[in-house]
Amino acid sequence: MSAGWFRRRFLPGEPLPAPRPPGPRASPVPYRRPRFLRGSSSSPGAADASRRPDSRPVRSPARGRTLPWNAGYAEIINAEKSEFNEDQAACGKLCIRRCEFGAEEEWLTLCPEEFLTGHYWALFDGHGGPAAAILAANTLHSCLRRQLEAVVEGLVATRPPMHLNGRCICPSDPQFVEEKGIRAEDLVIGALESAFQECDEVIGRELEASGQVGGCTALVAVSLQGKLYVANAGDSRAILVRRDEIRPLSFEFTPETERQRIQQLAFVYPELLAGEFTRLEFPRRLKGDDLGQKVLFRDHHMSGWSYKRVEKSDLKYPLIHGQGRQARLLGTLAVSRGLGDHQLRVLDTNIQLKPFLLSVPQVTVLDVGQLELQEDDVVVMATDGLWDVLSNEQVAWLVRSFLPGNQEDPHRFLKLAQMLIHSTQGKEDSPTEEGQVSYDDVSVFVIPLHSQGQESSGR
Amino acid sequence: MSAGWFRRRFLPGEPLPAPRPPGPRASPVPYRRPRFLRGSSSSPGAADASRRPDSRPVRSPARGRTLPWNAGYAEIINAEKSEFNEDQAACGKLCIRRCEFGAEEEWLTLCPEEFLTGHYWALFDGHGGPAAAILAANTLHSCLRRQLEAVVEGLVATRPPMHLNGRCICPSDPQFVEEKGIRAEDLVIGALESAFQECDEVIGRELEASGQVGGCTALVAVSLQGKLYVANAGDSRAILVRRDEIRPLSFEFTPETERQRIQQLAFVYPELLAGEFTRLEFPRRLKGDDLGQKVLFRDHHMSGWSYKRVEKSDLKYPLIHGQGRQARLLGTLAVSRGLGDHQLRVLDTNIQLKPFLLSVPQVTVLDVGQLELQEDDVVVMATDGLWDVLSNEQVAWLVRSFLPGNQEDPHRFLKLAQMLIHSTQGKEDSPTEEGQVSYDDVSVFVIPLHSQGQESSGR
Repeated sequence: MSAGWFRRRFLPGEPLPAPRPPGPRASPVPYRRPRFLRGSSSSPGAADASRRPDSRPVRSPARGRTLPWNAGYAEIINAEKSEFNEDQAACGKLCIRRCEFGAEEEWLTLCPEEFLTGHYWALFDGHGGPAAAILAANTLHSCLRRQLEAVVEGLVATRPPMHLNGRCICPSDPQFVEEKGIRAEDLVIGALESAFQECDEVIGRELEASGQVGGCTALVAVSLQGKLYVANAGDSRAILVRRDEIRPLSFEFTPETERQRIQQLAFVYPELLAGEFTRLEFPRRLKGDDLGQKVLFRDHHMSGWSYKRVEKSDLKYPLIHGQGRQARLLGTLAVSRGLGDHQLRVLDTNIQLKPFLLSVPQVTVLDVGQLELQEDDVVVMATDGLWDVLSNEQVAWLVRSFLPGNQEDPHRFLKLAQMLIHSTQGKEDSPTEEGQVSYDDVSVFVIPLHSQGQESSGR
Repeated sequence: MSAGWFRRRFLPGEPLPAPRPPGPRASPVPYRRPRFLRGSSSSPGAADASRRPDSRPVRSPARGRTLPWNAGYAEIINAEKSEFNEDQAACGKLCIRRCEFGAEEEWLTLCPEEFLTGHYWALFDGHGGPAAAILAANTLHSCLRRQLEAVVEGLVATRPPMHLNGRCICPSDPQFVEEKGIRAEDLVIGALESAFQECDEVIGRELEASGQVGGCTALVAVSLQGKLYVANAGDSRAILVRRDEIRPLSFEFTPETERQRIQQLAFVYPELLAGEFTRLEFPRRLKGDDLGQKVLFRDHHMSGWSYKRVEKSDLKYPLIHGQGRQARLLGTLAVSRGLGDHQLRVLDTNIQLKPFLLSVPQVTVLDVGQLELQEDDVVVMATDGLWDVLSNEQVAWLVRSFLPGNQEDPHRFLKLAQMLIHSTQGKEDSPTEEGQVSYDDVSVFVIPLHSQGQESSGR
């Protein structure tokens, strides 16, 4: 049992075995329980945090809103694809302290007590070992807290000030900020973007220092000031499920979805391919027989397809090869954004992957306060192991089938997360097409929105 | 009166003057009536092409569909902002010939008769003179026809073949094409993308040869095989207006909407700014007093905002300055995509604009055959002069107010285009907010979809 979520491993068709300590404990990167995750662990027996003594709502002094202490549930399995769990998770309260501008023009922490309170849920899906995912689970929330604390005065203002100390240099400063449409939520988006980059740098340094390798995707949800921010770098996914609505809250970043950006980079810096790859996309890898023929192709500036006469250089291995789940960047990686991978090279070459990867997430904002929330409105966050075998519609069907009949069950969100994972294992009652089984690690958070909506509307 | 559309000039509040020859006639680039625009000129007295003898439907041999001869109406005014009309337009039938693979492995035109028939409407909004817009109006349709003829065998196949000669090198070729999801419409998108680039090269050569300068935006609609393709590079706009729906068919490309791409390029190639500009975005241009302060900023990787301490280099003129209609790239240009501008430099410097501009359009596809078309469903295409003062909703309101009561009028689409332009001139019955007047050139096409839908469904 580790911080904040419940783990199980099982193989398709097998009965659930007894829980075992999670893989990462034996990993060379020491797994530390994130310190900010005070009391947020959830087990099947204690899944409903609202029943525990420390689950009191905490008032947010900035907005006068109260937020529930713990509204997230998660489950992880280790599919035994690798020796260690490559999926990692973190969740808990995000306590943002207030900083004030001191006399010596330095930022001083004058209020060590929390000033703004948010909640944080994060999933990290590692590759090349669990090290990067463990580091991310231990680090990213601290980076985010620091980034938010650096702009907290802007967060609580009606509109972020042009100057952080609030002193206008130019009388029309507020007007310029208004014309640019800059809102407090843009500072949270900026903080998430900066936190991902900072965390990526930390991971790079730590892995290098410990002689380890690896990378991970990162999917983060933050509830703050009545809004839910979802930041994604990789191929995990978050969706909002309501009675009449399924809304994607993230977008997957893979070699296929970022083809044009990746091809464009290879066009600008052809030396990154070291003469070993072609940046062009063809329906399949070309071979000698294709020389001189006109074949379908796409380059970096094209959304559509055209034909070109095949030259010898087109026979090289393609920069992005395969389609769907099989698509690989430089024959190596299935994702195009994430953290880590600083040392990753194409097998038996010196060609680096990192220049093609972005650590910056895409952030979407859900204005929870503007939704007319129902009791069963939830956000489902999960790693690709779930979405490979369940569509958004199938997940929503499972949510809508399960929650209304179990409104009195204090563990229903945990049970729903468990049920979603069971559904990826090819059980008879699974809504997946026959034979659709996930052999990947699967991690799921089910985040109920109702209590947050109630709190943020001032009740 | 010039090819394919009706021109008038008038100033706000003035009565309509008598028509005069259009400005470009006196331009150094000779204005030629595009040869493919046979008989498509429309004047107020002859706006309904279906009444003219050559308006018979032409059967498309490839799909067995018939298309109406002329379904487009347009109107242009010269707002006298410049000496010559900087808005240009072109429309007409697009006759695509079939090419077959000859014995000597060369493509030969075996069927000089048209094989596929489409329709083409295009608006070009020039800047720095009308030369580029005139060249584009005379050239782009030829580039597009050539590009489509080069892939016509793929267009008429159920699925484009991997090899253009239809000979499979590898038995699984069709399967690869299917797995990649490549459809005939992807070839049309590719042809549009290539045609824009080819046309841009032609304009660059012609302007250099004639010692002229300038650039233009380009918005093109092509009706082919039951689908409407809208390709846009610049800040013109096309929308679909139906009884219960307003659907944007294009997206504007301006320094603001393409901020991240432009900043990214300056990050990769800082020498493009020659030390004269900062790539960072601030709410306003910074000045000496801001030095050492923490101010709001955005860099290329950020969607959100953050704060940074101002350094001396931040005081330079910003790469993108101003907001909304006032936003300028390098203090010079209000659009970030288009044709031409090969010689454009920042005033009194050697800093080129062209590296930051893209000639490639974004293409959207409307499957007209899948719509349950009503009599009054239209596409409205117009240059920014219209959209600066009328919202999509206001244009749709005008369309829905006018068309149902005028179903018997053979000139109703022309009259609607005229009315839309009148509405930008601050008339009393205009739906714009009081005082909202366009002083820019305004060009409008109103394209009825109903006859095309009827034809493409086989009637």
